[in-house]
Amino acid sequence: MADVQMSPMEEMVERFLDAAARGDLVKVTSMLSHSNSLTNQKGEKDWTALMMAARNGHFDVVQTLLSYGCDKLSVNQSSQTAYDIAKFWGHRHIANLLARNMGGWDRVLLDPGANEHENYFSREVLDRLSERRSDSAWLEARQNSPDSVFLLFFGLNPLVSSTAEETKTAGQAEMRLCRLGPGSVGELLQKPGSTVIFLGVERRNGRPGALREGGEPTAWFAVDTDTDPLGNLTLPDRNSFFLKPPFPGLLRLNEDDAGIMAQARSVLAWHSRYSFCPTCGSKTKVEEGGYKRTCLNSDCRSQQGVHNTCYPRVDPVVIMLVIHPDGNQVLLGRKRTFPPGMFSCLAGFIEPGEAIEDAVRREVEEESGVKTGPVQYVSCQPWPMPSSLMIGCLAVAVSTDIKVDDNEIEEARWFTRQQVTDAIVKGTKPVFTMPPQQAIAHQLVKHWVGMTSNL
Amino acid sequence: MADVQMSPMEEMVERFLDAAARGDLVKVTSMLSHSNSLTNQKGEKDWTALMMAARNGHFDVVQTLLSYGCDKLSVNQSSQTAYDIAKFWGHRHIANLLARNMGGWDRVLLDPGANEHENYFSREVLDRLSERRSDSAWLEARQNSPDSVFLLFFGLNPLVSSTAEETKTAGQAEMRLCRLGPGSVGELLQKPGSTVIFLGVERRNGRPGALREGGEPTAWFAVDTDTDPLGNLTLPDRNSFFLKPPFPGLLRLNEDDAGIMAQARSVLAWHSRYSFCPTCGSKTKVEEGGYKRTCLNSDCRSQQGVHNTCYPRVDPVVIMLVIHPDGNQVLLGRKRTFPPGMFSCLAGFIEPGEAIEDAVRREVEEESGVKTGPVQYVSCQPWPMPSSLMIGCLAVAVSTDIKVDDNEIEEARWFTRQQVTDAIVKGTKPVFTMPPQQAIAHQLVKHWVGMTSNL
Repeated sequence: MADVQMSPMEEMVERFLDAAARGDLVKVTSMLSHSNSLTNQKGEKDWTALMMAARNGHFDVVQTLLSYGCDKLSVNQSSQTAYDIAKFWGHRHIANLLARNMGGWDRVLLDPGANEHENYFSREVLDRLSERRSDSAWLEARQNSPDSVFLLFFGLNPLVSSTAEETKTAGQAEMRLCRLGPGSVGELLQKPGSTVIFLGVERRNGRPGALREGGEPTAWFAVDTDTDPLGNLTLPDRNSFFLKPPFPGLLRLNEDDAGIMAQARSVLAWHSRYSFCPTCGSKTKVEEGGYKRTCLNSDCRSQQGVHNTCYPRVDPVVIMLVIHPDGNQVLLGRKRTFPPGMFSCLAGFIEPGEAIEDAVRREVEEESGVKTGPVQYVSCQPWPMPSSLMIGCLAVAVSTDIKVDDNEIEEARWFTRQQVTDAIVKGTKPVFTMPPQQAIAHQLVKHWVGMTSNL
Repeated sequence: MADVQMSPMEEMVERFLDAAARGDLVKVTSMLSHSNSLTNQKGEKDWTALMMAARNGHFDVVQTLLSYGCDKLSVNQSSQTAYDIAKFWGHRHIANLLARNMGGWDRVLLDPGANEHENYFSREVLDRLSERRSDSAWLEARQNSPDSVFLLFFGLNPLVSSTAEETKTAGQAEMRLCRLGPGSVGELLQKPGSTVIFLGVERRNGRPGALREGGEPTAWFAVDTDTDPLGNLTLPDRNSFFLKPPFPGLLRLNEDDAGIMAQARSVLAWHSRYSFCPTCGSKTKVEEGGYKRTCLNSDCRSQQGVHNTCYPRVDPVVIMLVIHPDGNQVLLGRKRTFPPGMFSCLAGFIEPGEAIEDAVRREVEEESGVKTGPVQYVSCQPWPMPSSLMIGCLAVAVSTDIKVDDNEIEEARWFTRQQVTDAIVKGTKPVFTMPPQQAIAHQLVKHWVGMTSNL
């Protein structure tokens, strides 16, 4: 900024914002105590100190700024609040803090303590920009733009590369989706067995550095092909390969890629199974950037009105942790296909005409014989195998005798708080093992242990 | 009971249970104060006083019994608690009271204040008995049993009769689904354009009087036909007719019938649109009591493994009330197709790979330009037009400027608490009208007014 002439006030604001961005709590506090008017000052692109601190993950600075009464609803030139920025950059504790303090939402919502939990596969990195899906000229231009990113699938298995770093938990290399350019996939897109879908564009919000002024934000697409594309394609690096089978491999992606993957694989899986019109059996064509399939038979009933046959399917599933009436045990079950010793939450598809809470009670009773009363929603998780939405709940048992339906599960048992804690921390001799932390079942159990830890 | 020889203790228990069943609070209290040991005594079929009071809707007696420390987890011979009974018989305030006090679930769940709200179309009167769906011999026997109940649809429009009583709210006659016997529909079931599905059996729990010992519980089915069945059918009474169009007519059913209808119409609508295999275009056959359609082409990929193409579809939708950051206004919008003056909650389908909370934020921003932060689940509602699951949420706005996407809605506005209250109570000059109380949008608004009434 040496080449810009600034007033003394502008200079002070600049130094204040810089201290917030660097997380220099001492300087932020000292400047505020001299000049409280700094609190809501805006710098370049209308960023405030709160946004800077939120962007860079400085929890203590955010706390201090809030205590000085800074405006949490202030927005930058991208119409973004500090909350948006913290959320986008994955600083959950800061997002939660800002949410709690935001515009008094602790007054506004009934249950201010229930902070949103972000599960694996849930992160929304891209703006889906659904209003652009019907703009075929725009879509075509983006598809041909050299900046655009393409993810490649072969029979629904994504092209990934493994990174050198080991993940902390699994001791396995982390996977990353390979980003290809339109030049690499151009030929593939023309092949009859290929499907291309539009995923969205990179969000500008919260990425001031990456913003290319005036230009379109980077668009992302995904392509699935039913014939081995390796003959026509130079792999981006030696470590890249098609992840096969996708499960549990998909659980090894980083959080950003997992979110993009959930969207891409669900929609592509729909295309791979819904090429024909279910109403008349005719062939269909892909429209709206891959979010619609229209019947080619002009006499088909699906041509009149709006029908769900034309749109991708999302299957809602309930998954629940059942709490013993004594509050100190939970019910977990195991399927025959689980790894030895693993137990997990019960789960099942929601049926037509059924509420979430009733589906929870029905499934628990069908699978384990246990009756449940009150049900409480906790969080949810998209599950792209092929396209489920796992709706995670707690349920309180009103009976405790177990009678397993052995078509569904092999065994169900009550586990004590201590046994569950041992399994989570992987103590020396846990009596059972838990699903991986990427599974919402793991998070539901953890949520229960956490919320009752002070009982 | 005059013909049975009873001991003095048995006689006293009998009189105690009788007082609880009749709601005689004075007698219940006086007997308890003389003999506290009466509290958990069981009578015929192991019913306790608490169950009797819960069955007959005597809130004050339930309260008193709880204060005397009676056992809320006690079950009758149908393995049912007082909570189950209150819920089944629609005594929601009692069910909520029992839930709050049940086995300490106020300790067990994070948010004991969040009582479950039962929306229209949500009531589960029948036990779906899904384990019987693959038992074709049992299903056939039940289908031919003279006790079985059949609901009839013609082109997805249900056969109903109007009752003489006026409903309180709409000033319109209430509708009731016509119950037919197997004799009336037998011929129809054989016709090529007919589909029959199994709905479930009547629950024995909580219906001690209606129990026929030893026999099978009454089974319910629904039939849809694509040709006018009236030539082959004598209508049960002069007031019966096919409800056409179903909406808003279906909102005039009683709560029990609405719950059964939601299940029946969703599954039948699926059959009417999914006769062909979406994977290969071949015809399919109905299996598992109407909950599966299997491809007739033995080479089809859908014959290997388990695929969602074979099962009925449920489309999850988010519907949300957006709260202004000041906590005293809410955002409502109107579609062009709404009746003049009506505003409702914003709503939209959840996309593949998307969490509930992200779908809420995306839809609100797409439709109204308003950004939202924290999202909280409230309750849900099956919506059988054709097969949606409306997931009702509150969302807190973090921006307030409205910019409507006029492809989606015509107008969106912030309404004050007073304006909303006027619309709910239908005051002399409300500035807008609300959707009917059967819609979850209405209930979400009411929920907000209720939870913040003491601000």
